[in-house]
Amino acid sequence: MLLCDVGNTTASFLDDQKFHSMDIEHFLQYEPKEKIFYINVNPNLEEKLQTNPLFVNLAPYFNFDTIYKNLGIDRIAACYTIEDGVVVDAGSAITVDIVSNSIHLGGFILPGIESYKKSFLSISSKLNYEFNTQINFDAFPQRTKDALSYGVIKSIYLLIKDSAYNKKLYFTGGDGQFLANFFDYAIYDKFLIFRGMKKAVCENFKL
Amino acid sequence: MLLCDVGNTTASFLDDQKFHSMDIEHFLQYEPKEKIFYINVNPNLEEKLQTNPLFVNLAPYFNFDTIYKNLGIDRIAACYTIEDGVVVDAGSAITVDIVSNSIHLGGFILPGIESYKKSFLSISSKLNYEFNTQINFDAFPQRTKDALSYGVIKSIYLLIKDSAYNKKLYFTGGDGQFLANFFDYAIYDKFLIFRGMKKAVCENFKL
Repeated sequence: MLLCDVGNTTASFLDDQKFHSMDIEHFLQYEPKEKIFYINVNPNLEEKLQTNPLFVNLAPYFNFDTIYKNLGIDRIAACYTIEDGVVVDAGSAITVDIVSNSIHLGGFILPGIESYKKSFLSISSKLNYEFNTQINFDAFPQRTKDALSYGVIKSIYLLIKDSAYNKKLYFTGGDGQFLANFFDYAIYDKFLIFRGMKKAVCENFKL
Repeated sequence: MLLCDVGNTTASFLDDQKFHSMDIEHFLQYEPKEKIFYINVNPNLEEKLQTNPLFVNLAPYFNFDTIYKNLGIDRIAACYTIEDGVVVDAGSAITVDIVSNSIHLGGFILPGIESYKKSFLSISSKLNYEFNTQINFDAFPQRTKDALSYGVIKSIYLLIKDSAYNKKLYFTGGDGQFLANFFDYAIYDKFLIFRGMKKAVCENFKL
């Protein structure tokens, strides 16, 4: 079973247990040689995906209980195997979704870590720093690099913690492992979206 | 007494009680006709300000107790009249500084509200929304506009609240009034930085 998750900057593939990814620019040239189940959030790719019948859009096959208007299909897929928990997909944006008894209670969006970095740079050349990934939440920062790191990482941390109560936390996405490290009880699953896609395929297709 | 606070995008003036401001592009052409006490955080303006003796740099005259390295002079000025409290300057960036017994305990930085909006737009055209300024913190969002507003405003709110404990909150800057509204006990003071500048002038100059 070949799965593909098309995002805004990258297309990720899972071929049984083998993972690989490519830039969207490369994906524009990509032609599949076998059937490929995909989800896509990138408006620029819709035409390409719809014109080749080897691309099978999985979006209509998720039986997902939500009242959220136009919930991104990647967020649906990431939540699809979770009965109870908070799902954090930390990529170019950070999406957080709350699931209880297999019902989606809602969710919210923050910029991705890299996007925060870019905003600081666009505000002032004096704010051009790599974040301190070891930032201490228990002491007020005493230099710019720490002030930026504390502001960004602790504000993300507090909002996720606030939404979690006692629920389990599931992280995925490029910065998922990094953010998961700030929590005592958190699961990082690189393939959370693919697990959801696989479930939707198994429920709907004879393979 | 003519005061001028030069920022990254705007120069603000206080002439006794009269306030006005101009874009940095206009300020580049501006020539003072009388002595003007200024603070400046904009590296591009340093040369202009140093070559005209009518511009008096107030930076060396703040007697401010901090171990923070290279603390912005606008942040020092905003804290300078506060004995105990948390000072939030919500402009192109949001700076938060904690003062206790007239000692600066440290601080942190977040992007400005407008800067969050721009980051979302640069991530995806699907995230191009004005924030919902009436966003409810007690219910998980059910549409993109609310998901972005909740993510941004509540993450800023929680981090400020976390740093405040029982201290008084002082807001200033273009989005200061807006953010102050989310707190039960908060003071909005448009002229907080000017008050600090005035104090430094009175302590050091015979007028």
